[in-house]
Amino acid sequence: MQFEQIKAHLMQLDSAAISDAMDSLYISAGLAGIVPRNAGTKIAGPAFTVRYEPIIPEQGNFLNAGNYIDEVPTGSIIVVDNQGRIDCTSWGNILTFKAIQKGIAGSIIYGSVRDLSEVRRLAYPLFSTGIYMVSGKNRTQIAATQCTLNIGGVEVSPEDWVFADDNGALVIPKQHLLTVIERAGNVDKTEQAIIEAITNGEDLVTAREKLGYAVPWKPVL
Amino acid sequence: MQFEQIKAHLMQLDSAAISDAMDSLYISAGLAGIVPRNAGTKIAGPAFTVRYEPIIPEQGNFLNAGNYIDEVPTGSIIVVDNQGRIDCTSWGNILTFKAIQKGIAGSIIYGSVRDLSEVRRLAYPLFSTGIYMVSGKNRTQIAATQCTLNIGGVEVSPEDWVFADDNGALVIPKQHLLTVIERAGNVDKTEQAIIEAITNGEDLVTAREKLGYAVPWKPVL
Amino acid sequence: MQFEQIKAHLMQLDSAAISDAMDSLYISAGLAGIVPRNAGTKIAGPAFTVRYEPIIPEQGNFLNAGNYIDEVPTGSIIVVDNQGRIDCTSWGNILTFKAIQKGIAGSIIYGSVRDLSEVRRLAYPLFSTGIYMVSGKNRTQIAATQCTLNIGGVEVSPEDWVFADDNGALVIPKQHLLTVIERAGNVDKTEQAIIEAITNGEDLVTAREKLGYAVPWKPVL
Repeated sequence: MQFEQIKAHLMQLDSAAISDAMDSLYISAGLAGIVPRNAGTKIAGPAFTVRYEPIIPEQGNFLNAGNYIDEVPTGSIIVVDNQGRIDCTSWGNILTFKAIQKGIAGSIIYGSVRDLSEVRRLAYPLFSTGIYMVSGKNRTQIAATQCTLNIGGVEVSPEDWVFADDNGALVIPKQHLLTVIERAGNVDKTEQAIIEAITNGEDLVTAREKLGYAVPWKPVL
Repeated sequence: MQFEQIKAHLMQLDSAAISDAMDSLYISAGLAGIVPRNAGTKIAGPAFTVRYEPIIPEQGNFLNAGNYIDEVPTGSIIVVDNQGRIDCTSWGNILTFKAIQKGIAGSIIYGSVRDLSEVRRLAYPLFSTGIYMVSGKNRTQIAATQCTLNIGGVEVSPEDWVFADDNGALVIPKQHLLTVIERAGNVDKTEQAIIEAITNGEDLVTAREKLGYAVPWKPVL
Repeated sequence: MQFEQIKAHLMQLDSAAISDAMDSLYISAGLAGIVPRNAGTKIAGPAFTVRYEPIIPEQGNFLNAGNYIDEVPTGSIIVVDNQGRIDCTSWGNILTFKAIQKGIAGSIIYGSVRDLSEVRRLAYPLFSTGIYMVSGKNRTQIAATQCTLNIGGVEVSPEDWVFADDNGALVIPKQHLLTVIERAGNVDKTEQAIIEAITNGEDLVTAREKLGYAVPWKPVL
């Protein structure tokens, strides 16, 4: 499947259905603690990964901020591991501006972000664990880009896809993309069939058993 | 007092006044960490309680989701104890749909919930400690329904009433309902009298002392 | 500089630029965990500080609430240290009403607040770490007013200025006000110049180096 097709399929799904499909593969996919900073945004795309690490610079030796955004391809989603830090940020207004200019789909920051007013005004799809106003400069630095991250026990590698909506963010390993798209589509159909059944007056327990809610990623019977 | 009368009285109050009335009885009532998922909703009703417990199923043995909603009476509020878990959910779109269909007043989940977009679109009164997208299936199961819950040291039993608004959620033990309604009404009147006094230029310290803010649940002097 | 001039300067800035200016002085300024309760509000003003301390009163001995608001000057920002407590509140509707009446600019509560519905209806600039409905009465009492607070390692003294917006809250020690205003203004100009450069197609790494983003508080070259 081509990039645009994959993206189109995923954008018709939601994180709950994708998560159920990942459950069918016994793979943990959810990134804990990630919250949307613009409610109602939904993103899907291949991850561009960035790992930061803490630093304590000498006084007076002001370091340049880490730069990676010039290398991020259009359509990617930036995934930053800043260890969930709450004492400094690793996303702000300039990165938001450049990301929009480059057609980057959104950012998922395991850490804090700043410049919320502008992020909201520009409606940029930003997801993070925290909000603060203190710069990451001289507090954190880039350790690696396009490396494998481990966020709360869940790995994110370059070319894995990530997805985020109002429920949070999760990872789809690239080798499972087609399976997950198919199974998540089935989850949606199973849930839709259950909602139709209960609309017609069926008990939930009956509808769930009859329509296979225990394995919602299988084709609806 | 009849159900409808009790509900009408409570719906004219707010959680702060009810909490003050509970303070007059030396009973802890607040359920810690509960946040509204649709700002501006307010609910009051008898609790239908559900306790979940963690499970680790065998691979390949996919369990059915717990079902209890078919037994919940109209007008009830579902109170779920899922131990405040952040790694899986115990509320989502199908339950929301069924709850609205059955005239359930709302849900208070000590744990995480999913399908936020639909919950918001349907304006269902949902309160929880967390948001996530991972299913509870095969991670948590129903241990008991209509049992006594202990949520952070506060007990909730069937037929106790629960109340929730933008400040959070709290419990009114059934044997104290009438006392609490009366005293919370007095709290409101005391606060209104203080606001009137300060509108007329009185110092807050004077207004509070004169109008008995230390015991606001007593009839206004 | 006069009060009105200082305030006018600060109100044209944001917490991120002020934080960067504080970084140039090697002073920690951010108050951890403070969240706006009315999104989009921004406040700047001298701190009126209040420190609460936990109490366990005897049963039946209901204490008066602490009162300090009658002494707070117009234009001040109330900063309350209630130790970030989540089990009781130290701000609510009556204080909100009186604060608006007195022309107090806003409140920053290191602890929980209640009466969110009214705070929102009145659009009062309130910032806090938590939300709950349980009164502080008989749980916390005023230990001191106009004292030096230590909030997560950051000191706030009377006459220090505080600033808060959607990113959170921070402190500007009074002796550094003029320096911070000047340098934060430079930060804004540096960031604006970088945004212009990337709008004109420059790479971010080039724009940041050329325009001195490592020391954004220096006059733009």
